[in-house]
Amino acid sequence: MSYSAGRRRGISTKGEEKKMSSELRKEPIIGRWVIVRTENILTPEKYIKENNSPRRNLNSVFAYGREYMTPPEVDAIRAEDTHPNNTGWKVRVVPNKFPALKIEGELDKRGYGVYDLCNGVGAHEVVIETPDPFKRMADFSVQELANVFKAYQRRCEDLAKDQRFKYIAIFKNFGRSAGASLEHEHSQIIALPMVPKYVKEKIDGSENYYRFHGRSIYEDILQQEYTEKTRIITENEDFVAFCPYAQRYAFETWILPKNIESQFLDIKEKGRQSLSGILKECLLRMREVLSNPSYNYYLQIQPTNYKNTVAFLWHIEIVPKLQVVDELEWDSGFYVVHTPPEVAAKYLREAVVPAETALA
Amino acid sequence: MSYSAGRRRGISTKGEEKKMSSELRKEPIIGRWVIVRTENILTPEKYIKENNSPRRNLNSVFAYGREYMTPPEVDAIRAEDTHPNNTGWKVRVVPNKFPALKIEGELDKRGYGVYDLCNGVGAHEVVIETPDPFKRMADFSVQELANVFKAYQRRCEDLAKDQRFKYIAIFKNFGRSAGASLEHEHSQIIALPMVPKYVKEKIDGSENYYRFHGRSIYEDILQQEYTEKTRIITENEDFVAFCPYAQRYAFETWILPKNIESQFLDIKEKGRQSLSGILKECLLRMREVLSNPSYNYYLQIQPTNYKNTVAFLWHIEIVPKLQVVDELEWDSGFYVVHTPPEVAAKYLREAVVPAETALA
Repeated sequence: MSYSAGRRRGISTKGEEKKMSSELRKEPIIGRWVIVRTENILTPEKYIKENNSPRRNLNSVFAYGREYMTPPEVDAIRAEDTHPNNTGWKVRVVPNKFPALKIEGELDKRGYGVYDLCNGVGAHEVVIETPDPFKRMADFSVQELANVFKAYQRRCEDLAKDQRFKYIAIFKNFGRSAGASLEHEHSQIIALPMVPKYVKEKIDGSENYYRFHGRSIYEDILQQEYTEKTRIITENEDFVAFCPYAQRYAFETWILPKNIESQFLDIKEKGRQSLSGILKECLLRMREVLSNPSYNYYLQIQPTNYKNTVAFLWHIEIVPKLQVVDELEWDSGFYVVHTPPEVAAKYLREAVVPAETALA
Repeated sequence: MSYSAGRRRGISTKGEEKKMSSELRKEPIIGRWVIVRTENILTPEKYIKENNSPRRNLNSVFAYGREYMTPPEVDAIRAEDTHPNNTGWKVRVVPNKFPALKIEGELDKRGYGVYDLCNGVGAHEVVIETPDPFKRMADFSVQELANVFKAYQRRCEDLAKDQRFKYIAIFKNFGRSAGASLEHEHSQIIALPMVPKYVKEKIDGSENYYRFHGRSIYEDILQQEYTEKTRIITENEDFVAFCPYAQRYAFETWILPKNIESQFLDIKEKGRQSLSGILKECLLRMREVLSNPSYNYYLQIQPTNYKNTVAFLWHIEIVPKLQVVDELEWDSGFYVVHTPPEVAAKYLREAVVPAETALA
């Protein structure tokens, strides 16, 4: 039996003899199984709508003229004749006022009985992505978004000089249910003295695959996605966006470079524009289909000082936070996805978004 | 430097030279690092309160007289002279009306290009824990709770006869933000054709530890917790409840058997009563300290047909769903805990709860 027949049998709701209500799919890199519903699936309008429209709060601490309200900036992309901690910036990076980790001090790794610990040494920074408190990332110009990525790169380069840091985590929370406490668009950077478990699992998984097959698993994934097309949302010259086959969350979207040896820090202005174009398009499509949902995105880049350029490929994971009434989310390593990625990708692909974003 | 000095230095807010804002702690079984804040920590009243009081909805489909509204029961603990699918039950187990997995059909494991999948074969059942739509689990009598555990055991024994199933997952969602769609107290059972990743990681981790040390890691953890006492919430003859050293979520609570060779399915009535007593006490303490929070609990039992009785020890994880205003929850394998387990355990331990639960 061909898989294609099996999939049709699952998703279609008519004219099939033996209908399965779901598929168990295995994520090929870290090996996690997920349950993908193929019956009683949820279409976008079935998810609970959240009100994420701006509150028109005029007191944003991140706005022009309030630079004194944040810790002094560590970096900024600003107009040439402007000065640090004054107006004129386009993207501004400041230390987090309540950092989870602090830059000062020794790691002092030590055992404590059966446990291990070290001091909370690291960096915790906030990237203020626009001076406009009301502008949403999906409405940024491609150039404005490219500046955000440039700021990420500059912070990575700077933080990687500190030998204590093994990983630079970059992520964004948008909307209340995704954990954003301030409406003004911003993302966060955390420099860590160890590689996070999830990233380490991806690296281990892709290295194992490379050792066995002599090919990058990302090459094989992209090849299969190009051939099938059903999970692809959009693509341009340098990047492709798709809903992964064994996604954890409905409408989860990954953006991968087409060049499987791409390094995030090596991306130049043209690449940043390309990346910005596809991210903007994904955010617009998500907003259109899912009524302006809360979301998180995570840059999954290589650890600092990691030299293997063929096995692991950096990428961006975008996860909308969708609430289901009869939610069956289960924290023990199993995820139930109520909208198959093929269905999610179709909605996202077919959404009508402004033409200016179609850079491809 | 002793760890104790380091920990005091972190948590205390006065009279220390070099204060760290957090510690990085490594979970000893699966090796995940978490950030535990030791500065700007959140006390219970800082978490957002949720309204989880019953809505007095009189139309519960799980109530007496509405047995016809659920699929026919697969098991029930009921008064001797009563009949299936009629009133008189104490605990009732029915198939989920919208199952994530279905009991019929072949697994048909197969490859699909770079991916792997199989049919969504499994069982998905609902355990209706009381006929009273308004009674909360924390208010169950010890005997009522013991009946719930008896039902879990009976379902495990029955489902394990099916050779397709490798793991029986048992979990409960209470409250809206923990994913419960129905207020009437219930839990869920999912029989899976594979062991979930999180459970597999725990088993692998504890087996590795056993091979290296010749001792169960749970024995060493319990030994250290007994000695330190700071993370222990309560204990009785057979079980101990504590906030784990490297917990992922604030106020997360684990209940472990004191007998490190305990098997969940071997627990007899006395053990069920003992387990029920400590679970009830934990739920009451959590309700008192955290204003009736939403929570999930997960039974972490051994896979079916798993014979190693010395390395992995079954336990219960209780995770309250607490919302933080400036939440920094991060999905990439790193957790930030805003209340250290030592502080959480102190609050839970010192809460005043009805004496009848003190079974120890």
